[in-house]
Amino acid sequence: MANPQFLSYVDEHQQQFIDKLAEVVAIPSVSGDPAYRQHVHDMGAWMAKHLKELGAEVELRPLGKQVLDGQEIDLPPAVLGSLGNDPKKKTLLLYGHYDVQPALKEDGWRFDPWVLTPDPDNSGKLYGRGSSDDKGPILGWLNVIQAHKELGLDMPVNLKMCFEGMEESGSEGLDELIEKEKDGFFKGVDCVCISDNYWLNTTTPCLTYGLRGIAYFKISVSGPKRDLHSGVFGATVHEPMTDLIQLMSKLVTSEGEILVPGIKELVAPLTDEERKRYDVINFSVKDIDDAVGASVALSDDKATTLMGRMRYPSLSLHGIEGAFSAPGCKTVIPAAVHGKFSIRLVPDIGLEEVTKLVTDYVNAEFAKIKTKSSMSVEMLHGGEPWVADPNHYSYRAAHKATEAVYGVAPDYTREGGSIPVTLTFANILKSNVLLLPMGRGDDGAHSINEKLDTSNYIKGTKLLGTYLYELAKAE
Amino acid sequence: MANPQFLSYVDEHQQQFIDKLAEVVAIPSVSGDPAYRQHVHDMGAWMAKHLKELGAEVELRPLGKQVLDGQEIDLPPAVLGSLGNDPKKKTLLLYGHYDVQPALKEDGWRFDPWVLTPDPDNSGKLYGRGSSDDKGPILGWLNVIQAHKELGLDMPVNLKMCFEGMEESGSEGLDELIEKEKDGFFKGVDCVCISDNYWLNTTTPCLTYGLRGIAYFKISVSGPKRDLHSGVFGATVHEPMTDLIQLMSKLVTSEGEILVPGIKELVAPLTDEERKRYDVINFSVKDIDDAVGASVALSDDKATTLMGRMRYPSLSLHGIEGAFSAPGCKTVIPAAVHGKFSIRLVPDIGLEEVTKLVTDYVNAEFAKIKTKSSMSVEMLHGGEPWVADPNHYSYRAAHKATEAVYGVAPDYTREGGSIPVTLTFANILKSNVLLLPMGRGDDGAHSINEKLDTSNYIKGTKLLGTYLYELAKAE
Ligand SMILES: [Zn+2]
Ligand SMILES: [Zn+2]
Ligand SMILES: [Zn+2]
Ligand SMILES: [Zn+2]
Repeated sequence: MANPQFLSYVDEHQQQFIDKLAEVVAIPSVSGDPAYRQHVHDMGAWMAKHLKELGAEVELRPLGKQVLDGQEIDLPPAVLGSLGNDPKKKTLLLYGHYDVQPALKEDGWRFDPWVLTPDPDNSGKLYGRGSSDDKGPILGWLNVIQAHKELGLDMPVNLKMCFEGMEESGSEGLDELIEKEKDGFFKGVDCVCISDNYWLNTTTPCLTYGLRGIAYFKISVSGPKRDLHSGVFGATVHEPMTDLIQLMSKLVTSEGEILVPGIKELVAPLTDEERKRYDVINFSVKDIDDAVGASVALSDDKATTLMGRMRYPSLSLHGIEGAFSAPGCKTVIPAAVHGKFSIRLVPDIGLEEVTKLVTDYVNAEFAKIKTKSSMSVEMLHGGEPWVADPNHYSYRAAHKATEAVYGVAPDYTREGGSIPVTLTFANILKSNVLLLPMGRGDDGAHSINEKLDTSNYIKGTKLLGTYLYELAKAE
Repeated sequence: MANPQFLSYVDEHQQQFIDKLAEVVAIPSVSGDPAYRQHVHDMGAWMAKHLKELGAEVELRPLGKQVLDGQEIDLPPAVLGSLGNDPKKKTLLLYGHYDVQPALKEDGWRFDPWVLTPDPDNSGKLYGRGSSDDKGPILGWLNVIQAHKELGLDMPVNLKMCFEGMEESGSEGLDELIEKEKDGFFKGVDCVCISDNYWLNTTTPCLTYGLRGIAYFKISVSGPKRDLHSGVFGATVHEPMTDLIQLMSKLVTSEGEILVPGIKELVAPLTDEERKRYDVINFSVKDIDDAVGASVALSDDKATTLMGRMRYPSLSLHGIEGAFSAPGCKTVIPAAVHGKFSIRLVPDIGLEEVTKLVTDYVNAEFAKIKTKSSMSVEMLHGGEPWVADPNHYSYRAAHKATEAVYGVAPDYTREGGSIPVTLTFANILKSNVLLLPMGRGDDGAHSINEKLDTSNYIKGTKLLGTYLYELAKAE
């Protein structure tokens, strides 16, 4: 149970918390565009200033430089904060990111993405870029600290905080920092909590204990030294695009079955205990239909659908670089084309293993094609899958906190995507990591009209605070 | 035989002719980009001014408006000119285009594409956008007229001229003009000559008597209402990209065999006379290797290779609209993807027939795929194949002119691509059309570093003039 004064404080300061969220949404801290880089630095400075005012020790740690769009620019700093160092308390590491995805009004936003705008229909939705990903959740932590400071309450645990400004752009420099500081700043961390994902649906809070990894591949096929006109060269030369399409057609069926031999055999066997976790999740196939706006689910069965996302691999064809991709009619024979696809990894499909299986298979399939084109296949980037022990005391604490704040037991979910820093913390700090989302499944984190529901922001702030109390007691 | 004074005049005015070509190359008359539209109008005005100075009656005929990139703008006018109306002479219609393809120095041009630049190695190559396609050839005609005017020589035939400014962008408005003026401006035309294609190789002049047609198709596959994240939705929904790749893989083999049933059966049978024309063409498979910069020819046999380009259909996969096409790694499941491909048409494959065969086949193949995606297939644009009688007096005249200027008999070629206006003139004016190219096969008309060889420009001017003399005598 959290201190009741804390819970009342949150209710009483709802409008102030929303105003503060508006203040940070107004800083367009887009990490992927050099034109916005100063705003990312401004947002880092805002974080440091406010954490200091709340009593934390704070350091803005430079992470070096990067080259972006041909310019060498400073990476945004990591904001490292500490609050409390009582040896009798547990020490929790918080992670979040203060950068955001790009957003342009003309992409179809209902409102200015940099002005936090309450839904005029009074649904409680707060629209704005970063509202849910990830400024709302990091302000949730700040709100918790503010409440305790102003009420003169002792914090239940020691906090270490690591907020980065490059999450949306590959977290450059962060892994090195964690590795370097594992026996420095990060020393003594008992467990890690990250609030940077979403409920599975729009109604039920969840704890997330697994993430799929990814292996992203590029198949390059080339032949002529330059693009050719199909009128002049059609039916006289081998066309790389034809060969590439043949190869890409051999990777996955329309029913989602991965055709690369050996991959599905690697998947960890399904235990009864794990199976039960899917059966009880508050979810229906209709939730998929609603989320994607069409009835295109692979299965009519709830658990099968959930396991498709959470515990089985998938192979998606993303597109082709080098071919004609604009609207209209261009009669080109592209000289070199690069097919992109990725495989989502789950335990026990390791990155190295899947890379070898894919490479061998694509090479073997290419050998069957009668062509004079050249082909190569390459793994462009990858991340291992991650799964945590959902019976760890940190999860039990979050379970109790969820019941206390929301009145329901949380769903136990695994995410289909990857949050690479999760794996870094788990591996380098040898620590349990809890993913404790604030937002709902329809928040549209990387889409237009990103939003955070007011109730998720306010109850989410209570949830994060209550979790600290439960964590303090947990064994 | 041309008047020897004319031939001497051309030699003596070589530098002046090159300077004039430089003057028109400097007008970036790109028809496909609204930002350049004023330059296209400027180039049309240049044509009208110079034709008038040369004694022609000239009209700039407005062709209406178009919507391009969301703006409504004026189409460039057709430049209609007449020179001579002696009822005892034949009347030849000349066609050319004064617009050009786009060109940006940063695409890899050695020199500024809008500055006609002689090869510093003194090869005689003149680099610049439009040098060969099609400003060099249209200046060739102007050079011929200038020589006759300044020398006080009578022109051997009456000329009608039709120069358009939209050829590189679909010749908008031109067909309507020709239809409307068939009994007006175009009345009395005996035959048509177009200089807007290329020698098959770099050494042998040719006369071109056939063009393949085209049927350009789009297969659209859609499912989700918006792009999805492959981490979240991979292995839970049917992916349109997977279905599209399956369909595209069923269209053509890596050896160029069209898999759509019924198409190859339609091709006109090969006659002995036609076969002989390929056997004598000055060409080797190595010319293909040289042209494309790699050994990727489908066949090792000369005639088979030539017939692949000239008299058989081909199917090329151009690309996919709506999928991820940029460099890098984006983990998107595209919501809707559009595969583009085209089939080159030859006698007797009609556009309507091939459209039905393709549509039926793609629908049948899609029905075999187990998916909930939606699919449609559409013919986006098309043009019938064209073939002329190479024994017509206009061809015989051009044959003699070629022998006179180049000292060799021309190759008789068919082009793999389409020049739609050819078919319009042939069909609406019921007239023989001769394609009499000025440039070489390596001019790079639509590529970077487009060039015209000085000798092709100068001898080409002589060829066009000599052709007029031979045409006057021909029966
Ligand atoms: Zn995030
Ligand atoms: Zn994000
Ligand atoms: Zn042209
Ligand atoms: Zn052209």
